[in-house]
Amino acid sequence: MADTESQIWLVQTRRLKRLLAAEDPTAFRTAFLELHHWEQAQFFLSLNRSERLALYRILTANEVGNFFDDIDDDNQQMPEFLAEMKSDFAAKVLTEMYTDNAVDILEHLDKPAINRLLTQMPRQSALNMRSLLHYDDQTAGAIMTTEFIAIAANQTLASAMYALREKAADAELIYYVYVMDTENRLVGIISLRDLIVNNQETMVYEIMNERVISVQVTDDQESVAQTIRDYGFFAVPVTDDSNRLLGIITVDDIIDVIDDEAASDYSGLAGVDVEDTTENPVKAAVKRLPWLITLLFLGMSTASLINHYESLVSEASVLAVFISLITGTAGNAGTQSLAVAVRRLAFPEQERTFLRSLLTELITGLLTGIVTGLTITLVVGFWKHSFTLGFVIGLAMCCAIIVANLAGSFIPGLMARLGFDPAVASGPFISTLSDLTSVLIYFSIAQYFITSFVGQ
Amino acid sequence: MADTESQIWLVQTRRLKRLLAAEDPTAFRTAFLELHHWEQAQFFLSLNRSERLALYRILTANEVGNFFDDIDDDNQQMPEFLAEMKSDFAAKVLTEMYTDNAVDILEHLDKPAINRLLTQMPRQSALNMRSLLHYDDQTAGAIMTTEFIAIAANQTLASAMYALREKAADAELIYYVYVMDTENRLVGIISLRDLIVNNQETMVYEIMNERVISVQVTDDQESVAQTIRDYGFFAVPVTDDSNRLLGIITVDDIIDVIDDEAASDYSGLAGVDVEDTTENPVKAAVKRLPWLITLLFLGMSTASLINHYESLVSEASVLAVFISLITGTAGNAGTQSLAVAVRRLAFPEQERTFLRSLLTELITGLLTGIVTGLTITLVVGFWKHSFTLGFVIGLAMCCAIIVANLAGSFIPGLMARLGFDPAVASGPFISTLSDLTSVLIYFSIAQYFITSFVGQ
Repeated sequence: MADTESQIWLVQTRRLKRLLAAEDPTAFRTAFLELHHWEQAQFFLSLNRSERLALYRILTANEVGNFFDDIDDDNQQMPEFLAEMKSDFAAKVLTEMYTDNAVDILEHLDKPAINRLLTQMPRQSALNMRSLLHYDDQTAGAIMTTEFIAIAANQTLASAMYALREKAADAELIYYVYVMDTENRLVGIISLRDLIVNNQETMVYEIMNERVISVQVTDDQESVAQTIRDYGFFAVPVTDDSNRLLGIITVDDIIDVIDDEAASDYSGLAGVDVEDTTENPVKAAVKRLPWLITLLFLGMSTASLINHYESLVSEASVLAVFISLITGTAGNAGTQSLAVAVRRLAFPEQERTFLRSLLTELITGLLTGIVTGLTITLVVGFWKHSFTLGFVIGLAMCCAIIVANLAGSFIPGLMARLGFDPAVASGPFISTLSDLTSVLIYFSIAQYFITSFVGQ
Repeated sequence: MADTESQIWLVQTRRLKRLLAAEDPTAFRTAFLELHHWEQAQFFLSLNRSERLALYRILTANEVGNFFDDIDDDNQQMPEFLAEMKSDFAAKVLTEMYTDNAVDILEHLDKPAINRLLTQMPRQSALNMRSLLHYDDQTAGAIMTTEFIAIAANQTLASAMYALREKAADAELIYYVYVMDTENRLVGIISLRDLIVNNQETMVYEIMNERVISVQVTDDQESVAQTIRDYGFFAVPVTDDSNRLLGIITVDDIIDVIDDEAASDYSGLAGVDVEDTTENPVKAAVKRLPWLITLLFLGMSTASLINHYESLVSEASVLAVFISLITGTAGNAGTQSLAVAVRRLAFPEQERTFLRSLLTELITGLLTGIVTGLTITLVVGFWKHSFTLGFVIGLAMCCAIIVANLAGSFIPGLMARLGFDPAVASGPFISTLSDLTSVLIYFSIAQYFITSFVGQ
């Protein structure tokens, strides 16, 4: 929000809180219900427990359900909010919400609480929610909603419009109308645009699009996101093996999927869960320490490798000067190649053969390695007045970059084949692995030169 | 795409290419026009130049425009495609596209080419495109489209529906109908749902929502994306200072913005442009080298710092063993803290005061530093049979982690204040900066202990 907007918002919020505290239901309702649902949600989230209890007394379950739909899925206070309501009021609020959002909340409750709420709902709502609770996390089934509009093919557009009017109030999206046969199989789709612009006496089957793009209920949510993005849809229908229409997934839920995915890639590269922006430093430390300690122990392998060469270092202590330069540069090159490889895996349509990718990275590594190696050869040559030393450093750096590039390109594909999320699993290992290989390359080359030319 | 789907797609593509080569316009048109626009676009992008020329002869400008709308904005072949068409056909194709997409293409052409195309278009289209070409990149103006539906307030829903039917075919999105006064100022909004479910004799001004959430034409595209996400809109109206409606931005364009933003954050952390998944290793090397070389020279500062302590290393070569472990661990801690800070900056509603964030990171750093430091003290103590050495390493690591955490938390905010994109500018510096400070801390502590306890 811009500054003036947040000023206005602050004033509005204060006024609403005063009205709530004064227990003036009429004035509060008028002011509150004028807000957009998302704004209502923001206001609600700024309340303390006793203010929230007052709010539940003033608003209807429908009104609460409307803005509960606009609270973020993964808000961890949701179970708390439901628990502080009367149980039948909570059940009504959930019933008034879109099924997908209500189920997202139920998933965070324990079994007895879920059952208590479901038994207080109308039969059909409870059935819908129970069926959605079955689906695995991160699949199409878990993010779809059952509030779609379906019609039969064998009617005029005018009668379809009539059916649409009846169902429009409850549907999450009325832009697409799905055409089903007598066994609930999806046979076509009509956009509301087509319903409106065509002659109202036309039959539905004459103008419906029979090439329906749909997703399977077991599909991964990322592939659903890809379909919606590629085709530019506002929603996509979800079907089972027998092509029966089970629900729809709307574009706003897909935005969350895309954003979560991006955040998890970013988290992976950094070795920390960035979604968790806790204010509590103890919790933050507990989250971050496992990776730090794991990497510390992996880093010990590099330390013991250097330890192996300690006599070489004490003989030529100048070698110590360039350890961090070589490991750092190789680490940077490896991270670049890793990031590109992870990104490629996210866009399968651009995927080429594994070997082809490795070859590209090999040549890229060769080129960057040679240029970087030559640069450092010259720099060290002039600085230390020894082009032999420069050459040792340059050659080591060139080799280390090539190996790091290959590792960065190879690891994500390997992780994906092993069933891990390549973005999350690969990031923290690449710098440690490239440290280890760089040090090995560096000291091997240095030892060779020292024993061949100096040691005699 | 799943495997069977890509098999089907391959067969379809081959058949279409055969029909195109056989110059069988009727059969080709039937098969091609059955595809969704995005599929048509994918097929088109798989053609060579002579196949494309054959396609332009078979299809109308409208049919080409339809799938050109579904080609990615930043496809760099677009100017080439336009150049290989006859100039008046190219102008027609652009006219048939949505204005925002057509303008995205025009932006990549040179001035004379733009003018040549615009003069061959109908006056109104040319005017619309000229006005959109003015707006700065990455603003609301640059991504909005002018194909929206606007009506007057003083009419019945029935007459509004009539107007909607007239304009529906050309509009990018008909879900929202915008209500304007006689001076084109935006005074209300009605969803198509409200138009349909209400009594058709109701007046527009009776049911329209007067609290319209809109964005300014000069707003940054990221803040537009935030508005659309927060409110769960399918589109948002774009207005000027005087609240005149200039265009709308639809959710599909916003998905691209969100994704580009995520990719650029990720690129920033890795120091490479991951959007550029070129197959050409020379180009890839040219893209990556500037960062690698820049960081190499920054890394030289660490090298010269170690050089400064070379006599210390030759005296106690065991110190060299732990250089990469300390710089690596501090670098990991700094990257964790940086990633969290960048993420926080992207969600301003969760932003707290700068000092508060620093304090949180300071305590987090203290805690992670102490735990990690104690761990390594014990490990080194047992390994090297010297708890004094262990303590030196542990203390250095603890201090280095605290400093790296603070830097990771401080730099993004600083970059944002200086007007840089914190995600892009901060990433590559953090490891170099933490290398430098870690080495300084490490050798200072080591020197102090050696001169105090050993040197005598």
